[in-house]
Amino acid sequence: MNKSFEVSEPSEDLVQRANTVRLASKALGQINNAERCSALMTMADSLASHAQDIVTANREDLERSASEGLSKALVARLKLDEAKLEEAIKGIQKVAFLPDPLGIRQLHRELADGLSLERVTVPLGVLGVIFEARPDALIQIASLAIRSGNGAILKGGSEARCTNESIMSVLKHGLSSTKVSSKSLDLLTTRQESLSLLRLDGLVDLIIPRGSNALVRFIQDNTRIPVLGHADGVCHLYIDSAADLAQALSISIDSKTQYSAACNAIETLLVHEEIASEFLAKAIPTFQQRGVKLLGDEKSQAFGIPDAASDSDWAQEYLDLILSVKVVSSLEEALHHINLYGSRHTEAIVTKNKERADKFLNAVDSSGVFHNCSTRFADGFRYGFGAEVGISTQTLPPRGPVGLEGLVTYRYRLHGDGHIAADFASGERNFTHKDLPI
Amino acid sequence: MNKSFEVSEPSEDLVQRANTVRLASKALGQINNAERCSALMTMADSLASHAQDIVTANREDLERSASEGLSKALVARLKLDEAKLEEAIKGIQKVAFLPDPLGIRQLHRELADGLSLERVTVPLGVLGVIFEARPDALIQIASLAIRSGNGAILKGGSEARCTNESIMSVLKHGLSSTKVSSKSLDLLTTRQESLSLLRLDGLVDLIIPRGSNALVRFIQDNTRIPVLGHADGVCHLYIDSAADLAQALSISIDSKTQYSAACNAIETLLVHEEIASEFLAKAIPTFQQRGVKLLGDEKSQAFGIPDAASDSDWAQEYLDLILSVKVVSSLEEALHHINLYGSRHTEAIVTKNKERADKFLNAVDSSGVFHNCSTRFADGFRYGFGAEVGISTQTLPPRGPVGLEGLVTYRYRLHGDGHIAADFASGERNFTHKDLPI
Repeated sequence: MNKSFEVSEPSEDLVQRANTVRLASKALGQINNAERCSALMTMADSLASHAQDIVTANREDLERSASEGLSKALVARLKLDEAKLEEAIKGIQKVAFLPDPLGIRQLHRELADGLSLERVTVPLGVLGVIFEARPDALIQIASLAIRSGNGAILKGGSEARCTNESIMSVLKHGLSSTKVSSKSLDLLTTRQESLSLLRLDGLVDLIIPRGSNALVRFIQDNTRIPVLGHADGVCHLYIDSAADLAQALSISIDSKTQYSAACNAIETLLVHEEIASEFLAKAIPTFQQRGVKLLGDEKSQAFGIPDAASDSDWAQEYLDLILSVKVVSSLEEALHHINLYGSRHTEAIVTKNKERADKFLNAVDSSGVFHNCSTRFADGFRYGFGAEVGISTQTLPPRGPVGLEGLVTYRYRLHGDGHIAADFASGERNFTHKDLPI
Repeated sequence: MNKSFEVSEPSEDLVQRANTVRLASKALGQINNAERCSALMTMADSLASHAQDIVTANREDLERSASEGLSKALVARLKLDEAKLEEAIKGIQKVAFLPDPLGIRQLHRELADGLSLERVTVPLGVLGVIFEARPDALIQIASLAIRSGNGAILKGGSEARCTNESIMSVLKHGLSSTKVSSKSLDLLTTRQESLSLLRLDGLVDLIIPRGSNALVRFIQDNTRIPVLGHADGVCHLYIDSAADLAQALSISIDSKTQYSAACNAIETLLVHEEIASEFLAKAIPTFQQRGVKLLGDEKSQAFGIPDAASDSDWAQEYLDLILSVKVVSSLEEALHHINLYGSRHTEAIVTKNKERADKFLNAVDSSGVFHNCSTRFADGFRYGFGAEVGISTQTLPPRGPVGLEGLVTYRYRLHGDGHIAADFASGERNFTHKDLPI
């Protein structure tokens, strides 16, 4: 952990800024859908017409970072050229066309004659967003926040300082001609104030981290504000003895290699011993042709896995072309291994046996449990949410891939005509508890 | 805060006990509805046939507490005679007849031909319950936990030690003849292990506190595990200038006096100045006849409120026959006051003006916002949930009165037939994202 990870108490100035965003977010939460959508389109237009300023600011960040010896991978993530910016602008327009997450009635019930209850979605309030390197994350999160009626306080990486400041000023410029107050968004820039964002309980309702596992874990450990995200994604694929082996091979390759740096790629392959010989005879060369380094337990080494997996391998998210392989003697042993080493992200089983599939889907307590398909489908866009705010591995909802619905909560509204509890306590009136049409 | 509020790291023994409950809860989560209901009925039978043992154990607690000088109010809460026990047993039977909260499909969608996604409710895992004095809380929470497929680790007050141990042993005895493992429940008894329950992140999924505001606030401040509950309930009632004054009076009296010790009773009455004179002329004597002590700001004192409210009064939950009264010049001033002093529990407006009612219901970000009815309706039973796990004032769901649905989460299940992401990335196959019947 580097120095920027020190959490200090929020300064008076930061508390005041957070209060300003909170006040603006209260107004934003009451603005209608058309006005929020129109604000998004104006934000997009503003970015398009100031593209040159943003790209220039980004060039400054790139030059400084190069001179400071930033790694090539980070520089690639930091770079925001016209093409990437155009993508991000299209992203805003897409978010504007998503269905409104606010004002959705989830429950509608007559409690008694003339007394009706409804549960309606409302914004959370203020989002706290901490993101590393990629400055287009700022654009995406700001648009998701405004779309869902939330204010946002954002903290980007210091590498992207100039880019982030330029983007934020362009977004605020755009908002200033809309019904959404430009005070709904704020960007933290100094290192000192940065992570005291984590201490703004009561002013910030949800923290969204976008960055490395280390950053996410640090944030989860250092705030009482709910965090939407996940640290590790140690996903498992179990090939059952009753698997269609051609299907098993194709799903294994896809789950590992289709994009190995993704959190929903598998890190461990569990293979039932009955089909291990036949399956691994084909799987090992196929993986190796794809450049995958294979590590295994003793049993799987006996079937040709070249290197030994160490104890720590089973719990590791490689995010790379490395795969641990373990041969198990039963579904139960596979479940036990997943329970021990899994991160409750996504696990899959390949089998033609429906009973065993059901057992797996019931017993594994990950946010995603899949049957006969690749773990790579665990994704908000692939689930059809239209946007992905993050993937959460916590127990309480929202969990799994989270769309705009992760940025709203609900409120109960009760409409009466002079109804008092005493009349019901005395028996003079009675509850009807009749569900009404949503 | 007394000594029992010290949080220490969990002992190895506690971690092992929590692991045992967690393992049992995994099995419990896969047991079908009929078996869980039948386990509840057996728990009820076991309590009924061991009623004498429990009442005897309770007498021991009562005698010890009396000799230790426990307050009369606490002794009353501690007392568990046959009548109260019978009530608690009936409560279990009611919980058994509630609709199953598990296995409910919340989302069902075809992602592509032959690839279908569903989101299904599943248990949380293990509940951590900390409750004071009232030993019948143990019976209620244990039944809610088993009904929703969750294990529970419970810690009661030391005053009720003998009663709680007796109840737990009777419940476990009952469970031992059912499909639900008696290891699904565990009772912590020693002071040392008690609150280290709050440090069992990863083993306990949700903390449910049942006790004083001070206890709840302490717990919220000392755990990273999500807490279902609320500390303060500083509820407001605003009487608008366009109120039906007879209705306003009746709702005011009910909201304050129908049960003043409840969290959903009001602590502050906000009165629009245009009707303050007429309204307070009737309201003041009516409140006083009911024994309500009235405190007010300068303006309301001018209308006859006898005593001055101090600055700290506006933020205080009296839980008693005391009411602060403030005269405001506009709806906006009322909203500002609620925003400043409210605890986001429940607030109500009395008005015949629909536009102002809508504004109030949109602007107040409490979990309950009511129009023309008493705040006392903010309750899981009155909402028709059949049970109340607690009332939460946090922002994220579940909030407000929470029924059994607060004890479940969900899991995504994806069913395919060899589907891999690469085919969709290449454009060979396309997502259909078609909602299917729930």
